[in-house]
Amino acid sequence: MSTNFKPRNPDYDAVVRDSFSRQPFMAEIGAAITHLEPGICELTLPMRPGLTQQHGFFHGGLVSALTDSAAGYACYSLYPPDSTILTTEFKVNLLNPAEGKTLRARGEVIKSGRTLFICRADAYAEGEGESRHCLTGLFTMMCLMGKPDHGKRA
Amino acid sequence: MSTNFKPRNPDYDAVVRDSFSRQPFMAEIGAAITHLEPGICELTLPMRPGLTQQHGFFHGGLVSALTDSAAGYACYSLYPPDSTILTTEFKVNLLNPAEGKTLRARGEVIKSGRTLFICRADAYAEGEGESRHCLTGLFTMMCLMGKPDHGKRA
Amino acid sequence: MSTNFKPRNPDYDAVVRDSFSRQPFMAEIGAAITHLEPGICELTLPMRPGLTQQHGFFHGGLVSALTDSAAGYACYSLYPPDSTILTTEFKVNLLNPAEGKTLRARGEVIKSGRTLFICRADAYAEGEGESRHCLTGLFTMMCLMGKPDHGKRA
Amino acid sequence: MSTNFKPRNPDYDAVVRDSFSRQPFMAEIGAAITHLEPGICELTLPMRPGLTQQHGFFHGGLVSALTDSAAGYACYSLYPPDSTILTTEFKVNLLNPAEGKTLRARGEVIKSGRTLFICRADAYAEGEGESRHCLTGLFTMMCLMGKPDHGKRA
Repeated sequence: MSTNFKPRNPDYDAVVRDSFSRQPFMAEIGAAITHLEPGICELTLPMRPGLTQQHGFFHGGLVSALTDSAAGYACYSLYPPDSTILTTEFKVNLLNPAEGKTLRARGEVIKSGRTLFICRADAYAEGEGESRHCLTGLFTMMCLMGKPDHGKRA
Repeated sequence: MSTNFKPRNPDYDAVVRDSFSRQPFMAEIGAAITHLEPGICELTLPMRPGLTQQHGFFHGGLVSALTDSAAGYACYSLYPPDSTILTTEFKVNLLNPAEGKTLRARGEVIKSGRTLFICRADAYAEGEGESRHCLTGLFTMMCLMGKPDHGKRA
Repeated sequence: MSTNFKPRNPDYDAVVRDSFSRQPFMAEIGAAITHLEPGICELTLPMRPGLTQQHGFFHGGLVSALTDSAAGYACYSLYPPDSTILTTEFKVNLLNPAEGKTLRARGEVIKSGRTLFICRADAYAEGEGESRHCLTGLFTMMCLMGKPDHGKRA
Repeated sequence: MSTNFKPRNPDYDAVVRDSFSRQPFMAEIGAAITHLEPGICELTLPMRPGLTQQHGFFHGGLVSALTDSAAGYACYSLYPPDSTILTTEFKVNLLNPAEGKTLRARGEVIKSGRTLFICRADAYAEGEGESRHCLTGLFTMMCLMGKPDHGKRA
């Protein structure tokens, strides 16, 4: 299930991992990159009580937040050097409760344009050999050229 | 800007606040209910470094997560007793970077049906007398009758 | 790419085709069912000048309207007898201009619940051996039990 | 309920009406511009049998198509000269059946950026003194600079 996308930045792997490492919220919740290739990014998040809603499942807002990040880094892997990324909009359907030991989110680019990238992304709650499809969504990311991926944006 | 909705549960205020207090993820990030009336819920979240993305703004996924909760509790305030709530789907446009000292999310029900509730919700980054409109979205919530709002769902 | 869905109505094929034949707007534009199996429906629409926007392509609103119908009938093929269908919400990304001799829309159910069905659907502009992916979207359909699929709804 | 948007093209009114007049699909269904100001566009469509679904209401796909056009022209009224418009994505909630003698769609820009415009748009089925809110949605439009609004796009 690889894509045919060619990265415009030969250092895409280091650039994506560096950007991810500078997102304090991803560290706060405990998410890690578990797969990365041009146009695809997978993030994984272990369950702990602080991440739940009132039924003990991963909080739905958190599920979409993790999936948004997976979508963003799937797109960012295809960006040229010296650019940064912005989520323009997204939409998700929540398919099943996110009950499991880990939450896995996977983004895959379906269209790379000059400024806009469209990504499909899904989340799965997993544990004890089971994988439950929790969320599917579509994400639009904007590529901001010549803007650094750190510090305050002007 | 009040709504004309009449709550089906006279104890809606206590029921919503109790449910919110049982969402560990909302406590983890530091969110609080700052306004509640039938069909409207507002949540507020103070900035701290652990909630940011790589530019130092509130993380976009977090902005949508807080807004999803505001939308959910706006709907839940109109539910009958002995019911629980589920986000079915939502879609958001991110309008401006979420740069500010607090993040405020406000949900307002636009249609209450028998099983489905439609809510508009917005987020604002605020501080030093300014309010910046960060996100607008539409949310569909399902009312699950006869299901408790706690413990594992069957 | 078949689904594993089992139809709850053994007459699903006749029921879907009958409902489609009672949609005057589908006849008005010239759409036909070109593939139907449980959980999947494909509609095809030949180009003519009355269906275009200002650049001579299929009008974008029409592309989403055809795709909405394909999604609806993909879901309706899984409904029990004596029910009707309602689009609750949908969201689409327009990927490429709909330039071609025919427009093909394909809906495929990704979750069938008791009342809500979630469907992914795509549209393709085709002609001279080419197929261009124009639109991808997610659709939520509601199953109204015990309501006839004709006449004015009460 | 006027907006505060200032048009970048002093001839915006003529430019929008000219573009609308070159959309054969809008003529085919019978839609007309009934209100236009910078950042706002309203379209109206009279009921006739060819525009209905199986219950005799305006077809849902048509309701979203008309609303998409209203959103597009609300944005296009704010575009600079020598540009054209493209719907990037949209999402809608269908609130009530579109039963009425006329269908009215109203788009209002909520953010105008350099390349992307975000619009809220709604549709109402009207007749005999009643107005029923059928659809609410959010639309993202792209401004293509230096591209003509007619002929085949390169």
